[in-house]
Amino acid sequence: MKIEIITTGDELMSGLTLDSNFNWAGDLLSNLGFDLAYHTTVGDIKERITEVFDIALNRARAVIVTGGLGPTDDDLTAEVAAEYFGSTLELNQEAYAKLENWMKERGRTLNESNKKQAYLPACSTMLDNKWGTAPGFSIESKGVIFFFLPGVPREFHEMMRHYVVPELHNRAQDRMKRDMRLVKIFGLPESEVAERLKGLQMEGVTLGYRSHRPEIHLRVCAFADTDSQAKSLTQNYIDEINARIGDYVFTSQGELLEEVVGRLLTEKSLMLATAESCTGGLLASRITDVPGSSAYFLEGVITYSNEAKENMLGVSASLLEAHGAVSAPVVEAMARGVRELSGSDIGIGISGVAGPGGGTAEKPVGTVYIGFDAEGSDTISKKYLFGGSRDQIKNMSSETALDIIMKFLITKI
Amino acid sequence: MKIEIITTGDELMSGLTLDSNFNWAGDLLSNLGFDLAYHTTVGDIKERITEVFDIALNRARAVIVTGGLGPTDDDLTAEVAAEYFGSTLELNQEAYAKLENWMKERGRTLNESNKKQAYLPACSTMLDNKWGTAPGFSIESKGVIFFFLPGVPREFHEMMRHYVVPELHNRAQDRMKRDMRLVKIFGLPESEVAERLKGLQMEGVTLGYRSHRPEIHLRVCAFADTDSQAKSLTQNYIDEINARIGDYVFTSQGELLEEVVGRLLTEKSLMLATAESCTGGLLASRITDVPGSSAYFLEGVITYSNEAKENMLGVSASLLEAHGAVSAPVVEAMARGVRELSGSDIGIGISGVAGPGGGTAEKPVGTVYIGFDAEGSDTISKKYLFGGSRDQIKNMSSETALDIIMKFLITKI
Repeated sequence: MKIEIITTGDELMSGLTLDSNFNWAGDLLSNLGFDLAYHTTVGDIKERITEVFDIALNRARAVIVTGGLGPTDDDLTAEVAAEYFGSTLELNQEAYAKLENWMKERGRTLNESNKKQAYLPACSTMLDNKWGTAPGFSIESKGVIFFFLPGVPREFHEMMRHYVVPELHNRAQDRMKRDMRLVKIFGLPESEVAERLKGLQMEGVTLGYRSHRPEIHLRVCAFADTDSQAKSLTQNYIDEINARIGDYVFTSQGELLEEVVGRLLTEKSLMLATAESCTGGLLASRITDVPGSSAYFLEGVITYSNEAKENMLGVSASLLEAHGAVSAPVVEAMARGVRELSGSDIGIGISGVAGPGGGTAEKPVGTVYIGFDAEGSDTISKKYLFGGSRDQIKNMSSETALDIIMKFLITKI
Repeated sequence: MKIEIITTGDELMSGLTLDSNFNWAGDLLSNLGFDLAYHTTVGDIKERITEVFDIALNRARAVIVTGGLGPTDDDLTAEVAAEYFGSTLELNQEAYAKLENWMKERGRTLNESNKKQAYLPACSTMLDNKWGTAPGFSIESKGVIFFFLPGVPREFHEMMRHYVVPELHNRAQDRMKRDMRLVKIFGLPESEVAERLKGLQMEGVTLGYRSHRPEIHLRVCAFADTDSQAKSLTQNYIDEINARIGDYVFTSQGELLEEVVGRLLTEKSLMLATAESCTGGLLASRITDVPGSSAYFLEGVITYSNEAKENMLGVSASLLEAHGAVSAPVVEAMARGVRELSGSDIGIGISGVAGPGGGTAEKPVGTVYIGFDAEGSDTISKKYLFGGSRDQIKNMSSETALDIIMKFLITKI
């Protein structure tokens, strides 16, 4: 059963507002195994709204329209719907009474703008909005059900859950059970992932790619008669992915890389400290985005200046002079320095040229060194050359540092 | 001239990815005065993509298709386009040579999946993608121009600017001149902004609101016969906004708050250092997102543990014991401590409960103290109670700290 979502609003067409309702509904419907086939967005213009209603009526079995039910003049949906379905707007007494009551409970009185919201197409069934002032409604025509819901996200969510999903369930009894898993990869380019997974096909399982720079995300989706069959299909498929590129897969449960690192640090009871230069605190900020990170993250320093590297981390002036701040010996000294300063088990040091200025022939923009020091291991470091903007170089550097920590933790007994 | 955007991808229909390209393009096109009339999203299914191409051909004059040009099997756009426009896929020698060169520059070799990207519809004109591997292309049919662009945001943006916008300009000569300014506000709720701006109307000028938590962005847009008329309209309107709520406006040029702070620090030749606890490096990371920030940002420390606050910043154990890490005396000591440690002119200290755990009756989740210390001024601090998730509390704290620095710098002679 094909479903279409229609979102209306000038603020969406002009880029002023990001359409979060479609994204939210896509997630909900796809997790329930429904086929969301089309999504259309159109501004607050009568002719264009009519046009997209007509296209939807001819290609979908259920249509969810969101937006345009508010009290202002540019809210046209009820009017356009009435006209398109050959009906007229009528004051809905039940909607009006509820609206009056809603206002009374809040010590407000109904004005003309509010009253407009109680006028619904005569051919429609009212959908009571318990979460706001604009009632929704539904209209059935030629075997297609149209739901009209408010655009305010919270009201849209509640009305989707209360009215739309149950009705869709009634109309699509034959849906299959679905399982979805999100596999995340770092360190292999997308074309290489595609190459290595070539020919990996399994009945009932689909694979979707998404480049989420610098990561690649794979969505593995299976349909089957029962939940457990669907789950076992996705697991089998993921086993095969792991057999082929497991070294680059950091999660098959949709976790963030910083969550994986946090989980491993907790499991091994190890503490971490960071010394950042070009990433400017981004690595520490990502690590501390994870709730409970204070259990394994002790401290971080952002040593932007050479003086800070000397005074806080004990990186010697002669080392800085001999090799420069962006060098292997300096990031190794930073990693060791912050580990000793904080008394943690693991220390990380990052220094690089994030750009756009500051590059030289020898150390162009994107040159980044990462040093790693752990209790009982040798201090190591590696040189990288990252491409892209300042943001991207910062992001790639923090990602690579997290990957280094993760790989160390995985192999550590 | 009606424009349509078509976005393809299963990951969009299933809510896995938020479509930021449509939002970005809507903003760009509307700022340039173009009529973005329709937006359609569809999954990676051949029949459905064909169907939406057909609808677009019949209702728009320019169609921008994004996504589906990658190297993997679910990237179908070029194939579907070739078939729909009665052509075939052919190896484009120029695209192939560029692709080979791109890989060579990065020390990689071309595999079969990459090579797929160089196959374009024979009837198309290649659009050179200098920012990634997937070349774009355009096809003209029945007076309608179709642009096919990669879905990777950075590549999409560059190709929109380099190829699509100039061509749209050629095709729509009769547009009015337009000026747009982005005014950003921090510290007033949206309903209060709306209340204070009530009745502010000017012929030819439109005002759009966007909540960009924790900021409010106002888009002021004017149409006129000449560029200078349009510019003077927006300026008059912004003067009136400033007269009403100027204390809360931090830019009328679309700058980021961290850019404003950086500009002011540079102008006053002052150096900054930060000591963060609950924000975990986010403040320093935002400050160092600005190119050239090394000229005014000396260093930062992330003192997650009490030991770090003592050892690095000299916050006394007795102070921590008497008041707790989340307290006015401690953030003041942090601000002073990092200023003295770094030898900078301004020091900031932040400590709070970012949650979701760690809250108490006295200091619930969202309690944040920010301390400020500057050469020649008294050390000050303030207590805040922020709502929302861990991310939102971190973000609101870093925003408030930047606002405090900005206000100090504006008033400082």
